[in-house]
Amino acid sequence: MKPLATEELQLLHRYWQAANYLAVGQIYLRDNVLLQQPLQPQHIKPRLLGHWGTSPGLNLIYTHLNRLIRHTGADVLYICGPGHGAPAILAHAYLEGTFTQTYPEVTQNAAGMLRFFRQFSTPGGIPSHVSAHTPGSIHEGGELGYSLAHAFGAAFDNPNLLVACVVGDGEAETGPLEGSWKSIHFLNPARDGAVLPILHLNGYKIAGPTVLARMPDRQVRQLFEGHGYEVLLVEGNDPLLVHERMSEVLGKAYAKIRAIQEQARTGALTQTPRWPMIILRTPKGWTCPKEWEHHPLEGSFRAHQVPLDEVNKNPEQLAMLETWLKSYHPEDLFDANGTLLPELAAMAPEGSKRLGATPYGNGGHLLQELQLPDYRKYALPVKTPATTTGMATQQLGKYLRDVFAANEQQQNFRLFCPDETNSNKLTAVFEATNRCSMNALFLSDDHISKDGRVMEVLSEHLCQGWLEGYLLTGRHGFFPCYEAFITIIDSMFNQHAKWLKTCNELPWRQPIASLNYLLTSHAWRQDHNGYSHQGPGFIDTVVNKKSTVIRLYFPPDANTLLAITHHCLRSKNYVNVIIAGKQPELQYLDMEAAIQHCIKGASEWHWAGNSPSAQPQVILACAGDVPTMETVAAAWLLRKNLPQLQTRVVNVIDLMALTPRPYHSHGLTNEDFEQLFTTDTPVIFAFHGYVRVIHDLIHGRPNPSRFHARGFMEEGSTTTPFDMVVLNQVSRYHLAIEAIKRSVPEDENGKQVIQLFEQKLEEHNLYIREHLVDMPEIAAWKWE
Amino acid sequence: MKPLATEELQLLHRYWQAANYLAVGQIYLRDNVLLQQPLQPQHIKPRLLGHWGTSPGLNLIYTHLNRLIRHTGADVLYICGPGHGAPAILAHAYLEGTFTQTYPEVTQNAAGMLRFFRQFSTPGGIPSHVSAHTPGSIHEGGELGYSLAHAFGAAFDNPNLLVACVVGDGEAETGPLEGSWKSIHFLNPARDGAVLPILHLNGYKIAGPTVLARMPDRQVRQLFEGHGYEVLLVEGNDPLLVHERMSEVLGKAYAKIRAIQEQARTGALTQTPRWPMIILRTPKGWTCPKEWEHHPLEGSFRAHQVPLDEVNKNPEQLAMLETWLKSYHPEDLFDANGTLLPELAAMAPEGSKRLGATPYGNGGHLLQELQLPDYRKYALPVKTPATTTGMATQQLGKYLRDVFAANEQQQNFRLFCPDETNSNKLTAVFEATNRCSMNALFLSDDHISKDGRVMEVLSEHLCQGWLEGYLLTGRHGFFPCYEAFITIIDSMFNQHAKWLKTCNELPWRQPIASLNYLLTSHAWRQDHNGYSHQGPGFIDTVVNKKSTVIRLYFPPDANTLLAITHHCLRSKNYVNVIIAGKQPELQYLDMEAAIQHCIKGASEWHWAGNSPSAQPQVILACAGDVPTMETVAAAWLLRKNLPQLQTRVVNVIDLMALTPRPYHSHGLTNEDFEQLFTTDTPVIFAFHGYVRVIHDLIHGRPNPSRFHARGFMEEGSTTTPFDMVVLNQVSRYHLAIEAIKRSVPEDENGKQVIQLFEQKLEEHNLYIREHLVDMPEIAAWKWE
Repeated sequence: MKPLATEELQLLHRYWQAANYLAVGQIYLRDNVLLQQPLQPQHIKPRLLGHWGTSPGLNLIYTHLNRLIRHTGADVLYICGPGHGAPAILAHAYLEGTFTQTYPEVTQNAAGMLRFFRQFSTPGGIPSHVSAHTPGSIHEGGELGYSLAHAFGAAFDNPNLLVACVVGDGEAETGPLEGSWKSIHFLNPARDGAVLPILHLNGYKIAGPTVLARMPDRQVRQLFEGHGYEVLLVEGNDPLLVHERMSEVLGKAYAKIRAIQEQARTGALTQTPRWPMIILRTPKGWTCPKEWEHHPLEGSFRAHQVPLDEVNKNPEQLAMLETWLKSYHPEDLFDANGTLLPELAAMAPEGSKRLGATPYGNGGHLLQELQLPDYRKYALPVKTPATTTGMATQQLGKYLRDVFAANEQQQNFRLFCPDETNSNKLTAVFEATNRCSMNALFLSDDHISKDGRVMEVLSEHLCQGWLEGYLLTGRHGFFPCYEAFITIIDSMFNQHAKWLKTCNELPWRQPIASLNYLLTSHAWRQDHNGYSHQGPGFIDTVVNKKSTVIRLYFPPDANTLLAITHHCLRSKNYVNVIIAGKQPELQYLDMEAAIQHCIKGASEWHWAGNSPSAQPQVILACAGDVPTMETVAAAWLLRKNLPQLQTRVVNVIDLMALTPRPYHSHGLTNEDFEQLFTTDTPVIFAFHGYVRVIHDLIHGRPNPSRFHARGFMEEGSTTTPFDMVVLNQVSRYHLAIEAIKRSVPEDENGKQVIQLFEQKLEEHNLYIREHLVDMPEIAAWKWE
Repeated sequence: MKPLATEELQLLHRYWQAANYLAVGQIYLRDNVLLQQPLQPQHIKPRLLGHWGTSPGLNLIYTHLNRLIRHTGADVLYICGPGHGAPAILAHAYLEGTFTQTYPEVTQNAAGMLRFFRQFSTPGGIPSHVSAHTPGSIHEGGELGYSLAHAFGAAFDNPNLLVACVVGDGEAETGPLEGSWKSIHFLNPARDGAVLPILHLNGYKIAGPTVLARMPDRQVRQLFEGHGYEVLLVEGNDPLLVHERMSEVLGKAYAKIRAIQEQARTGALTQTPRWPMIILRTPKGWTCPKEWEHHPLEGSFRAHQVPLDEVNKNPEQLAMLETWLKSYHPEDLFDANGTLLPELAAMAPEGSKRLGATPYGNGGHLLQELQLPDYRKYALPVKTPATTTGMATQQLGKYLRDVFAANEQQQNFRLFCPDETNSNKLTAVFEATNRCSMNALFLSDDHISKDGRVMEVLSEHLCQGWLEGYLLTGRHGFFPCYEAFITIIDSMFNQHAKWLKTCNELPWRQPIASLNYLLTSHAWRQDHNGYSHQGPGFIDTVVNKKSTVIRLYFPPDANTLLAITHHCLRSKNYVNVIIAGKQPELQYLDMEAAIQHCIKGASEWHWAGNSPSAQPQVILACAGDVPTMETVAAAWLLRKNLPQLQTRVVNVIDLMALTPRPYHSHGLTNEDFEQLFTTDTPVIFAFHGYVRVIHDLIHGRPNPSRFHARGFMEEGSTTTPFDMVVLNQVSRYHLAIEAIKRSVPEDENGKQVIQLFEQKLEEHNLYIREHLVDMPEIAAWKWE
């Protein structure tokens, strides 16, 4: 990139001033937007919202990235960690024309500028954080900590993309952000794009100083060199000097990135390269008034939000605001109609090179359909239900292996997992690809390479953040995780679900691939782990989100898991949660039956019950592999011991089928629901998760109090699988006993059978609680 | 500390071997525990569980900490991050006698050793991770990433304590752990104890290499020097050399720590000191067999769990196991009765200095009651309900200020908060204390000092981890947080709730102070933030936990907030979640009424309804400040427009009052519940959170389908407070309309009133959706 000539420096500076002017304007003005009249209280918004503090820094970076793009033709994605700086990002979108392109009513003249200012942070307008509404953004700026993980996710498999990621120094204190710096150990410059982190140290959070900003330059440099970066420092408060330094450093960083990529792409790179990063130290609230009532504003936490917050009623503040706004010389930026002067407009890149218009920022534009093998090929034969065992995730591993193979050319599918691919029995994928690492390899390593597509890192946050960035830029992925530990990213899921919900309301946002979880190593089969590994709470977190966005599946065996996963990998704009164990388990449905079951979402398993009539005496319902086994076994016990009792077994694979149709599109119609569950038969419902989900979903269905749900009730330890279902009172015996009590409580035979089953439970408890330490035999480790 | 003499070196080494022997024994042996006979398949456990990989390293550290304690008399707490290494920690507890003291049936002889081996990871025994069952532990080893935050929390205000915190290199990849290194910026050596992090780089996680282990020494050193530590390296695979180096380095670290503390305590320290840390590089699975079938075991991921996993059926493996066990020379460690030889037993510290017996590891022993001011002093006067406004958290701030003052002497209370104390209107606390920081201060800073007791860091993970460590070592704390962002620590809360539940089952675990959250800046009042800040999902996560452990409160105004908080600060062994807004809001109850309301948990507000009878036509119920205001307003609208309709208003402050009594001790008795809600009157329930919680809690109450809950339904943006309740259909008009529809659907007057209210909503929508951008007036920003 050419050095910055004086004339270009002046133009850059004025462009930055234009952006600053628009940022301040959004916060304060509801009229007199070009300051053509003296500023009056009636020109001020009724309520002052928005964040100034980080805006001038964000504006500086945007301005210089524009120059980089113009000079090099690079494709750049701008990720704005300090999302409260929306006034800055929106200002630039407006200046470069992408805002008007997206929201045509906001024109590039005085009338449009008026609307632009008024709509900011106003009901009916654009929210005050960088959000899905913001052109060019894939990153919600509300919850801090994920920008850098998103940036790397966006860069994977996008070899021509440069992701400029601004990290605020508040955000940099969060755990997930601190854990993201190591992503360079997983970024392959031969096939991936680049991330240029720009750590913006402006000194303060909302009220207190930041840790990094108070560290001396030497130590900050040491820290990030320790992380493996080449640190380039830009520091100052004189705008012209900072512009010069910034353009020099940005050019240097860009050249270094291209050199690394060239070296890697010609095969000359052997290890994690030292990627450049920029540390930018500028004052918080830079260029706002210096102080108010002897308290500093510029350079202090008091500039975080609205530095002068009484301009409505305080004439002195109003005058200060006017001086502040005029310090940017709007008359030298916009013509009398409020249109940006042509020499400034020329400072932005053109067309889809503009940061607000890049297709990488609206990834559905780049989405290529995933090539999927025929999942029926991987079916386990099931001649008679519940007689053979198989490992569902093992079969799925073979299918995923071939998904990798089928998309080798497209390079648009990855698996993200916290070091558990093998543990989750998906080992077959390593026949098609490897774990990814850029570090030195040892002979003792297993299936690792620089071009592996299995992203294993012991950080659920990083897996989730990478995957989100990967999906949001138009690719596909799959996230297998231990069930209990997926709640580590509850909040990240929340934000992604909110993002998708908002995108659904924005016609210009193109559909992207769904976020697919496989939760395995679940609560019921933690045979050699403890209570900490037993937690199905993610279901509750997911169910709460907007029904247009979420789906939950409980395939009970291998063939249903294959059919469901295939379906999920083809879907768009959802979060799909699939919960299925990794252990050898009973198989119930052949592939054709599995497909029919998945289509219905819930169906009667005739072979498991014994009621030919439309009115059974009791319904045994279930969702989840272990509850399904217990339910099938309970029905069998009842058939054997109380054959006259008419039972029906219903399996629910698509949990949202239970919801009344108005609340979820997968909800069974009333007719279908009543055909399955009748209107008044008692239902004993064995559920994988906490029972409250069932209590909620059936609210509004006929006669909900007849549903007696059993599920995980927070009892667990290192124990046998059968003991887990006993501890949580969802064992075959518990289910069968309740079925009798709820259907034929007065039946004498029934009472005897109950006694028999209670005795069985007592024997189990005695055995496991008192004698297992004596280890008389191995049997107790097996299923009853 | 004295240098290691040859004789002591030999004894240390043998003690380490004894621990290694016991670790291997726990994984494999169910008989022949002293190897007095040739090893046979019947001596092997039926199922091999437990993790060997990290155990020898943990054993090494424990052995050397023992020596440090013996030589210096220090009080040390051992926090074991790699909790899968329970075989190591339990082995040491057994060797030093604390295990037998805690579980007397496990004696220190051959019979006891047999029981010790058998009970490990066996139903009825001790789980396979370091857990609440483990003597001396405050840290559950199941979910990785929190050890270092716990360590610092334990060290705060414990000036004589040294917390040795082992961090595994897998764990070190998690975000929360990476975000914990900066805790030294908040640790004041003048008043706090010390943390000695020991980063154990053994190279592999479950299946893949770790990032840190593959970084060259020089770079690892640079990273942690960048974090501010002095790095001391111990590396090797020759045990005797490693012992020598470890004892030298540990002595050096200890001396450095004491020097820092002395300097600080004599007032000579001006800034964050450079604390020592140890990096320990030893092979994974150190001292196990070198390889099996040409795959390396020692030093590879294959040693992570059970290195030889077919000893039951494979004679060659059985022989290898025997050789492995004999390599520790059990005959030189234990006498013929299986008791540790006296010269080895003397290597452990004595009494409560033992790591398994320190009172810091069972913090209830050290708990001093918090001194609490009379909360009634801070009451807001309320002469007539719902006529004056006040700010609940502002009042609470004054109360908390005086809590700080009252415990100035005890130094056992802190507030943990992600930089939001001011924002949450708790500003009064700064009259009694400051924010804490060890860094250089600037003139522009506000209320910061080295001895501040408000722990502000922009990391919910760190706030939660510090607080847990602080509570578990016997102190008190309070965690105010933005409601939406508390879900960042969902999983940490899960694990803490599980820990408390388990402790309740262990009589030797002493009660500790409750973990108290104040969730403010909540979903309904994010006037200048966006959709990302609107999420009440933490309620659902909490409700799922064991009912003996969790409590949820929704104080609707200032006086109830004061009474509830006071109650929570006095309670033990709970997680208390208090949800209350920070904005000016209507006040309902004077202090006496507030106290009565809190005691009941839920009560009728006679002044708000108009039904004198025991049988109202409709009940308007509510929980949460904003829903309460809408409910009171709805009742008022109904009184005004449809005076003949008999309404009752019920406010629920203690959410668990709704649960049937058998499921929660706060549950209303059937009698009380029916007195409030009758058995059949329709109930319109306005709830702060997602409605599913209400649907669940009332399951089992008479006639649950008459409860019509409304709550947050994932609609939000930057908008007005009133628009938020309209968007989510919980506004006064929505409530009043539903009340009429559910009670007097055929009433002609009622139909007219419904029309009137629907028109009001339409006007609002038209105004806010279409016209607000034109900003004709300020009114829309106010409550209707």
